[in-house]
Amino acid sequence: MCDLKPDAGRGYKMVSNAALKAEVPNSISFEELRGKSIKHARPHIRSGAYTGHTAGIGPGMLQGNVAILPEDLALDFARFCQRNPQPCPLIGVSDTGNPMMHTLGDDLDIRTDVPKYRIYEHGELVDEVTDITSLWQDNYVAFVLGCSFTFEDALMAEGINLRHIDQNKTVSMFITNIETDHAGPFEGGTVVSMRPLTISDAVRASAICARFPHAHGAPVHIGNPAEIGINDINTPDFGDPTEFKDGEVPVFWACGVTPQNAIRSARPSICITHAPGSMLVTDVPGWATDSKQPKNTTTREIS
Amino acid sequence: MCDLKPDAGRGYKMVSNAALKAEVPNSISFEELRGKSIKHARPHIRSGAYTGHTAGIGPGMLQGNVAILPEDLALDFARFCQRNPQPCPLIGVSDTGNPMMHTLGDDLDIRTDVPKYRIYEHGELVDEVTDITSLWQDNYVAFVLGCSFTFEDALMAEGINLRHIDQNKTVSMFITNIETDHAGPFEGGTVVSMRPLTISDAVRASAICARFPHAHGAPVHIGNPAEIGINDINTPDFGDPTEFKDGEVPVFWACGVTPQNAIRSARPSICITHAPGSMLVTDVPGWATDSKQPKNTTTREIS
Repeated sequence: MCDLKPDAGRGYKMVSNAALKAEVPNSISFEELRGKSIKHARPHIRSGAYTGHTAGIGPGMLQGNVAILPEDLALDFARFCQRNPQPCPLIGVSDTGNPMMHTLGDDLDIRTDVPKYRIYEHGELVDEVTDITSLWQDNYVAFVLGCSFTFEDALMAEGINLRHIDQNKTVSMFITNIETDHAGPFEGGTVVSMRPLTISDAVRASAICARFPHAHGAPVHIGNPAEIGINDINTPDFGDPTEFKDGEVPVFWACGVTPQNAIRSARPSICITHAPGSMLVTDVPGWATDSKQPKNTTTREIS
Repeated sequence: MCDLKPDAGRGYKMVSNAALKAEVPNSISFEELRGKSIKHARPHIRSGAYTGHTAGIGPGMLQGNVAILPEDLALDFARFCQRNPQPCPLIGVSDTGNPMMHTLGDDLDIRTDVPKYRIYEHGELVDEVTDITSLWQDNYVAFVLGCSFTFEDALMAEGINLRHIDQNKTVSMFITNIETDHAGPFEGGTVVSMRPLTISDAVRASAICARFPHAHGAPVHIGNPAEIGINDINTPDFGDPTEFKDGEVPVFWACGVTPQNAIRSARPSICITHAPGSMLVTDVPGWATDSKQPKNTTTREIS
């Protein structure tokens, strides 16, 4: 079995970082980078000095899940993302063999600019590293998919508190009976993340999240876990259980762990992903991809 | 040179259809299908009895530009679409060699369900046919991209008149200096369509079209043709010139001819597209792709 772990959640516990940090003389803590611009933070990520989670680093910038696959699987994976845009909102694809993600930043190197990577062989986790320069191959294609940090920022900015963040836990995630639309070897149930909200906040959250189709969009379900194949709301498949308060209902969003689940079923000879919570922080504003304009377009004032 | 012609416009003139119709004993006219459901119209398209434009056929259903390419170019073309979502909003990709577009309809066959196709070899138009069953190959991949019909419907529903439709002309199209973000051999300037509007309608149109990212989204420019490399607003690169009335400004949208322009520059050994205006009419409601939900998802009433 692949060691599939939650794909983010603000409260990701950096249990294994202590060992990694000990190896890096100039290591830097999350507290030192919290709220700092990505321009400031990236050199520390690139050098391997920072290997932790990215929530709160590079505020306002789009962050993404990463999946690197050999080219012979890339067209099928691109189709999988196109067919399942809510769990797999594709925000960037590299040229084959080219590690520079030129559509997401001027100098963004997928081999060094993620704080921590996981290496999977035939679906099995075999290593966790902070730099994949020596592993990079001419036939690799890197995919970057939008993540929940964008809509969580938007919800909190609107005054909607999120329990897992308040309690420094990993968001609860569940494999559902909502089948993805398969492409080649990629298939499986949609994974959802769950946040408990009052009914009025659930309605507001739906309207707010609908503005961010590149970050999973509006919830896929509200109210009845059984209807989407979840037997016990207190026993998530990934992440921590979440406390409910009176009057709250479970609200479910499509989740970026879905493609990892699909990759597990495809069992590719090699796949490199970000480590949970340690996303690629891009140079693209978080709100920008929903109304992306051609690069040199300007809208002049009408005279 | 490839015989690049406008990619739609309500007023597309079916000059060449007379000859085609004469060959089909049970041919049917546009007037007989106007406003009819796609379920009613599709058998006539499939049989070759209807070979005309699709504006007003299958009202409310998403229509798309079609590009069929060999698999060895498919990953690059998918990347080109991902990188240029305004001119190339990808709404469907077939499995390699499988002509059934299962994500866009239950029984949608890309070989027969477009009224008229164009065959390009090395970028040169070599034939125009109504059925590509005998041409289909095991290595073909079909791409379907959103088109302007969706937002034009929305604008007209909001009471914004469109001159080219009122005057039964093809919309004016221009190659701009807004470079696309290239992928492999696919590159070139963004092609835009232009509609003259009053300033207040231009503002309303921008807000309305922003709701349809899968149909080119908000305008890419308003007001000054020279700024996007258009020297003479009365001499479009494709389509008909458009009359301006007092107080109107030119409003420019990214256009589905952009990928055809990129395909021309790539000069693939073979490429099959829809004929201008004769789009693929899908079974997907025109408003649906902007908030696409996993297929078996329901949102229950909260009890």
